[in-house]
Amino acid sequence: MTVTPDEYSLLTDLYQLTMAACYVKEGLDTKRASFELFTRKLPDGFGYLVAMGLTQVLEYLEQLKFSPEQIQYLQSTGIFDHVSDRFWDTLLDFQFTGDVWAVPEGTVVFANEPILRVEAPLWQAQLVETYLLNTINYQTLVATRAARLRDIAGAEATLLEFGTRRAFSPQASLWAARAALAGGLDATSNVLAALKLGEKPSGTMAHSLVMAMKAIEGSESDAFTAFHQSFPGAPLLIDTYDTVAAATDLASKVNAGEMELSGVRLDSGDLVSLSQQVRSLLPDVQIFASGDLDEYEIARLKAAGACIDGYGLGTRLVTGNPVNGVYKLVEIDGIPTMKQSSGKSTYPGCKQVFRRFVDGEIQSDTLGLVSDDFEDSQPLLQLVCQNGKNLQLPETLAAIRHRTQTNVASLPAIARQLQNPQSPPVMVSESLQKLTLKEEGRGKKGN
Amino acid sequence: MTVTPDEYSLLTDLYQLTMAACYVKEGLDTKRASFELFTRKLPDGFGYLVAMGLTQVLEYLEQLKFSPEQIQYLQSTGIFDHVSDRFWDTLLDFQFTGDVWAVPEGTVVFANEPILRVEAPLWQAQLVETYLLNTINYQTLVATRAARLRDIAGAEATLLEFGTRRAFSPQASLWAARAALAGGLDATSNVLAALKLGEKPSGTMAHSLVMAMKAIEGSESDAFTAFHQSFPGAPLLIDTYDTVAAATDLASKVNAGEMELSGVRLDSGDLVSLSQQVRSLLPDVQIFASGDLDEYEIARLKAAGACIDGYGLGTRLVTGNPVNGVYKLVEIDGIPTMKQSSGKSTYPGCKQVFRRFVDGEIQSDTLGLVSDDFEDSQPLLQLVCQNGKNLQLPETLAAIRHRTQTNVASLPAIARQLQNPQSPPVMVSESLQKLTLKEEGRGKKGN
Repeated sequence: MTVTPDEYSLLTDLYQLTMAACYVKEGLDTKRASFELFTRKLPDGFGYLVAMGLTQVLEYLEQLKFSPEQIQYLQSTGIFDHVSDRFWDTLLDFQFTGDVWAVPEGTVVFANEPILRVEAPLWQAQLVETYLLNTINYQTLVATRAARLRDIAGAEATLLEFGTRRAFSPQASLWAARAALAGGLDATSNVLAALKLGEKPSGTMAHSLVMAMKAIEGSESDAFTAFHQSFPGAPLLIDTYDTVAAATDLASKVNAGEMELSGVRLDSGDLVSLSQQVRSLLPDVQIFASGDLDEYEIARLKAAGACIDGYGLGTRLVTGNPVNGVYKLVEIDGIPTMKQSSGKSTYPGCKQVFRRFVDGEIQSDTLGLVSDDFEDSQPLLQLVCQNGKNLQLPETLAAIRHRTQTNVASLPAIARQLQNPQSPPVMVSESLQKLTLKEEGRGKKGN
Repeated sequence: MTVTPDEYSLLTDLYQLTMAACYVKEGLDTKRASFELFTRKLPDGFGYLVAMGLTQVLEYLEQLKFSPEQIQYLQSTGIFDHVSDRFWDTLLDFQFTGDVWAVPEGTVVFANEPILRVEAPLWQAQLVETYLLNTINYQTLVATRAARLRDIAGAEATLLEFGTRRAFSPQASLWAARAALAGGLDATSNVLAALKLGEKPSGTMAHSLVMAMKAIEGSESDAFTAFHQSFPGAPLLIDTYDTVAAATDLASKVNAGEMELSGVRLDSGDLVSLSQQVRSLLPDVQIFASGDLDEYEIARLKAAGACIDGYGLGTRLVTGNPVNGVYKLVEIDGIPTMKQSSGKSTYPGCKQVFRRFVDGEIQSDTLGLVSDDFEDSQPLLQLVCQNGKNLQLPETLAAIRHRTQTNVASLPAIARQLQNPQSPPVMVSESLQKLTLKEEGRGKKGN
């Protein structure tokens, strides 16, 4: 089961289409609506998020359309038997005609700050919710983790994305690789992702090669020699049987001038003690570590004096608890709206995030209305799509990675720390506070 | 960034291809190898896994090939400059020619039990590792969660898959929908997934419709009437402002004979008390609940006397910590192999799982060699692909769901409980114990 871009119109929750049909029947479909995408709360242990996935959002909006076959399928379900014919005409003629405001990929954001806003005819703005959340939620999660890993490991460390076997579907592995590289990692082992991203794939070797060659040819040492001859730049994996014995064997080859070894990888055991022993045996060789590593474990290894130059990151980079972004109606036909459900209320109106820096460091953000104006603050949301036309110039991964790095560097230390991080203050502007109070009053009336 | 089946040959870790090239150079590529896929440990809090994803594995193996353009890309990376020309011929001529043994989808398995075994020329069996782990790990996770949800919610509850917005990429949402339905859920809200799976999509309505109509037309009540006219069978979402007030309004319409309401959905607040109040107001209406629900929360709601007939399941079904399946070489050229890395050692040799039932309940499993034979035990792994040819007849989702249900029903209660579940005993056969001891001895020699 794969999905191609021409199938994305149906890659949505059924209710987006039933609500669209209802809007058409009620004559509300063309009313101008604004929806904002944000998270109410950062994932546990995170002090910031790195916004990612806008490129895929804009590609999606430009290509989105319904084929006659897709419309026929919807009709065949029997679900839409009571809707007006104008709904089907609306789908057939559809292309996205709205505007999108968004923060650039690689921008750090905090809870309640819009990552993007869609302003479009109501039914269009509604329809795209599911895909927009899907792409932004996941890529933002992986980019944030990558930024944290880079922040902890340091600029000199080599950070490799090895998550494909644990990613949640093949496409997830591609998106994870993109977000990881944009968030601060150096390379991915995923060959297809590297091809699509214009990057060079990276990798070492697996235990199976050592096991197979040892079984047939008699020794781990033969396996190292064979693999090194074909791939002299690839690190050798030395923990299949006895790490120190393997390193001793390699050291004798290196010292005898038989092998120009560039790197080794450790995937098990006490990485602190083993890496120190390997460093003393192979002082000029890069040492890579892997095996369920994350930023907390890297911090622990560094503090304990491990001699590790690079890390392979997989499971804990590409799986786990998600970023729970939501997409909420904030204005319809010029009227601000807010959700008031218990524990899930939102701020009404079209908003902007105003960021204030002092000496290059983020001092505070103010969540305000687009009509607000603050001197010495930088508005984060930019117009990136107008009347359905993508205004963004394509950006390289390197450019996004650089923006991520600059953004993370501008965070106060307390937002970057691993233990109990805290976001900088996000204040609510006076005009937004007033509007919120007013709308809360309106919501309680006229049920 | 999407992926199509003809791109799957590059959807792999670089090292699978570099190792393949090394095997070719060493003349080992055609040696017969066996790899087994299993998990060393179940995810925390799980007493069993429901194996899922075999259908996608077999499709992949049948379609796998390298195009001249893909080979050209690999050559252009410069990584393969030292390999023999025979490697490129091998890729160009490649189609999968191996055998696959596997447990049927929907079978419950425990730690260390192979979900599948690939027996193929070494380089082929190696190459497919990344994709096989990717599909089996994720679908097994979602199917297991779905089975647990069904087990706790009971046969009568309606369980709907709503996870697309939180899934890790569009394709992940398709795979999640498939695994969720095969594992015990009733329907998915994902329209494309439903189309591909031959199912009818399902859904309710969102807060935005209520908010938009209330802003323009003046009341939540008008929004309900409008949506109900177009979609009389769809549940109405009643928690946007005041749940009890909304239910009271609907009850007056129902009691006046103005509306034949089939269901309502609650997405926030105290679901126990609200569902009880709604039940007393709307006694004949189905009540659905949603909002970060999982099997633990459903158990809590039921125990507390909530009046809920159906659940929408999203975030906690389709994201989270993964099933950490691994894929390990167990035999090469007739020689059993085992990995002996610290804390990560494996059992050598081609294995079978022998399951013993007493009165329809799983008593114990024995992990043995394929040459073992136990009376009154059922071997779980079956030959599903021979010489590259898929032997499986296509199965309906309903058939797999039925197998899942039967398998879960055959588990002892302690494996099904949510608090500290325990798998039935998995014993190791005498012959496998002997082989393991022998191979441990061999591994320590001849480094």
